[in-house]
Amino acid sequence: MKSLTCFLTAALLLTAATTRAEQGSDAAPPAPALPRQVILIIGDGMDEQQITIARNYLRGAGGELLLDRMPLRAAVHIETIEDSVDGQPVYVADSANTASTMATGAVTSIGRISTSAGDDRDLTTIAELATAAGLRTGIVTTASVTDATPAAFAAHISLRLCEDAATMVDIRYHDIPLGECTADLKANGGSGSIAEQLAVSGVDVILGGGRSHFSPVAEGDTLSTLELAQRNGYTVVTSAEALATAAPDTKLLGLFSDGTMPVRLQGENGREAEHPQRSWLNHLHPYLGSVTLPTPMRCEPNPAFASVPTLRQMTDAALQHLSDNNERGFFLMVESASIDKQSHERKPCGSIGELEQLEEALDSALDFAATHPNTLVMVTADHAQAAQLTPDESLFAQFPIPVFTPGKVARIITPEGGQMAVNYGTNNFVMEEHTGAAVPLFSNDEGLGRIPPFIRQSGIFTLSRDYLGL
Amino acid sequence: MKSLTCFLTAALLLTAATTRAEQGSDAAPPAPALPRQVILIIGDGMDEQQITIARNYLRGAGGELLLDRMPLRAAVHIETIEDSVDGQPVYVADSANTASTMATGAVTSIGRISTSAGDDRDLTTIAELATAAGLRTGIVTTASVTDATPAAFAAHISLRLCEDAATMVDIRYHDIPLGECTADLKANGGSGSIAEQLAVSGVDVILGGGRSHFSPVAEGDTLSTLELAQRNGYTVVTSAEALATAAPDTKLLGLFSDGTMPVRLQGENGREAEHPQRSWLNHLHPYLGSVTLPTPMRCEPNPAFASVPTLRQMTDAALQHLSDNNERGFFLMVESASIDKQSHERKPCGSIGELEQLEEALDSALDFAATHPNTLVMVTADHAQAAQLTPDESLFAQFPIPVFTPGKVARIITPEGGQMAVNYGTNNFVMEEHTGAAVPLFSNDEGLGRIPPFIRQSGIFTLSRDYLGL
Repeated sequence: MKSLTCFLTAALLLTAATTRAEQGSDAAPPAPALPRQVILIIGDGMDEQQITIARNYLRGAGGELLLDRMPLRAAVHIETIEDSVDGQPVYVADSANTASTMATGAVTSIGRISTSAGDDRDLTTIAELATAAGLRTGIVTTASVTDATPAAFAAHISLRLCEDAATMVDIRYHDIPLGECTADLKANGGSGSIAEQLAVSGVDVILGGGRSHFSPVAEGDTLSTLELAQRNGYTVVTSAEALATAAPDTKLLGLFSDGTMPVRLQGENGREAEHPQRSWLNHLHPYLGSVTLPTPMRCEPNPAFASVPTLRQMTDAALQHLSDNNERGFFLMVESASIDKQSHERKPCGSIGELEQLEEALDSALDFAATHPNTLVMVTADHAQAAQLTPDESLFAQFPIPVFTPGKVARIITPEGGQMAVNYGTNNFVMEEHTGAAVPLFSNDEGLGRIPPFIRQSGIFTLSRDYLGL
Repeated sequence: MKSLTCFLTAALLLTAATTRAEQGSDAAPPAPALPRQVILIIGDGMDEQQITIARNYLRGAGGELLLDRMPLRAAVHIETIEDSVDGQPVYVADSANTASTMATGAVTSIGRISTSAGDDRDLTTIAELATAAGLRTGIVTTASVTDATPAAFAAHISLRLCEDAATMVDIRYHDIPLGECTADLKANGGSGSIAEQLAVSGVDVILGGGRSHFSPVAEGDTLSTLELAQRNGYTVVTSAEALATAAPDTKLLGLFSDGTMPVRLQGENGREAEHPQRSWLNHLHPYLGSVTLPTPMRCEPNPAFASVPTLRQMTDAALQHLSDNNERGFFLMVESASIDKQSHERKPCGSIGELEQLEEALDSALDFAATHPNTLVMVTADHAQAAQLTPDESLFAQFPIPVFTPGKVARIITPEGGQMAVNYGTNNFVMEEHTGAAVPLFSNDEGLGRIPPFIRQSGIFTLSRDYLGL
């Protein structure tokens, strides 16, 4: 196709230009090889609805996010399959299988951490390839470091829930069986839980929440998983202050909360989206009576957030440790995890604040790239989420019957004085579902000519691998 | 910002390269000016959810749409304001104000057709600018040609519902007052209804549905609006056969159905999304009893579709008429309208078929551009819609309680043998709401270097105007 050919030609020209620039002029001696870096920032559940909601709140309808000023924007098609070899397609993903695809280039099934669908093979991750080639690696997240997205870059296990040594067999929630990882026990020839795998991994920097998953005694050992990590060379820090002063020449494990880290913003008095309140007459017939929508609210700071380092602080620390005296480069994954988690819980203010955290981490990454040539910065989401920006006044408000969502809605007063409705209507359960739309991919100028306008999620692995020359 | 600078530099380089190619080599005499064309294709309501749903159904999870092979993909932020001068932002749009923005470059309020918010001034459209400069213009849609999106490119009126001479004062639906356009009556110094404005417009080709809106006698006249159009030089055609054989050297008005044109696909036996069926015990408590989801279904052809020309046939005819013996070029807007309309009615098969129609129209546009240099092809949506691709089996299916959507869901069997759930959960009313996410913008290679990764919707007007040199 002409247009495609044209794009590829332009891409090749730009790549050629980049190569020339790296080589310097013909007369000069060859420049020393510079280290190459990939910083992959993942906004969990950060689809176009979430981005638009955050833009309206943080910058106003006439404003721009930092994401909007990135020189490249593409779309990423998400793929998932049933849990069998060559399984049929499944059209909506979870964070485990999508992170596994970004980490390994393979499409797998829901719940898996860098293992293959059906036959449970370990899939080599970009972090493992980088380590093997002498590059450094880092994982930063606002979730537990043992949560699906970070785990997929450094561990291999059949089920994401097997986060620690005490959660491997017959996992239950209020007596409801949720699965097991018996085959992954060390006693059965496996590598143990996610925390145990992280504790003995080669990842140079691991920062986030999830301290509680390092308390259990490691399988076949007398040490706790945290002690196992220390024995394996990790310096452990648990506060923003200790993080800022940690020596650069050591492997770093930062655990700043027991589980998921507290988020930056919350609804007024902790409010979330709520059901419209129907009058008794409306319960008799949907055309009768009246319906009262939730009272509009502002977002407010979450006091608990002050107890942990920000995503920007963690990103800055990781970049400093990974780049210190490093001639080979690194691969760093940074996740803003609770855009998704807060959307599951119908808390739009929470998602907005975590998207702002992602913007700050991106700002740090771009600052780093400005002084470190050959740094590819990519920002993407793993899957779409349930939240929808809906009309605060229905398009059908002039009809003389109650018109309202069957789900739950939050009406947010924006700083510019508007009113924005965020609707959650995928599930009656305590948690909303993921959705299946393609997600955005942004990059700095290093992505120009390398990243086409539409890719599959496995392409994020390929791009990272090729950029780093692995 | 470095990244932005880099994008602009690349853009300038590419623009310079294009200019050089146009001018030929330094030694050759200047080439004659070629006509320039803009083909703007609008998928009404075609957001990332709709595109992904259509990709999965039409091409499979491993496939690609023609849209996905376009060399440029950007995001468009939608803007709307209250109906007052400098009104506060409104965060979800309708098709009237968004089409007005694309047609005129101005942000306006919901329901308006190329008139300003608050003070109701007529806003000059890209089609009017093109006509004034001697270019031809065309409007093609699968809706009534008097519907909001096509209307905004050629008419000016305060309310989209004033589609014909009989629908100007005290518009009612089942005795419910929906508004009026009294100030737009010719008797009051206005330009009359949308149909009357189209009938006397300078638009060279107008193709779509909406025949019924041309039956009423034109205000202050003895002729029907259709006869008014004929008096104004329009050849009227009402069948695919007549369209294919219409003389090229005449203004063309094609009206192929009374209202919205029939869509290509429908659910099995006309089925749409349905409420999960709850057992009586589940009505007592949401954790009790059982819930039966709708039976999975296939999409099937809609028999009524055979009675009208396809969007591709209308696009081909328009391109032929607009380019015939034309040394100045043209502006053509092509709308696939019922991606949105079918989503309002919770009919995912309908939306899928209309997205396929858009793909075919795009194919025609790209074929035309391949033989006519200086043709900018852009594809975008006017706003996002309610439909969401949701998990066919809930992420929380292992919990021993009924887990289901509070809205309505369709479970579609895909040709590749998968099963895809499409959820509608924004409204209890007979129609779903629009949503507020940014929408995609695609272009052919003519857009490279001209279209940045993120624009506001008004930028579509600016891009068209600048490309055509208006």
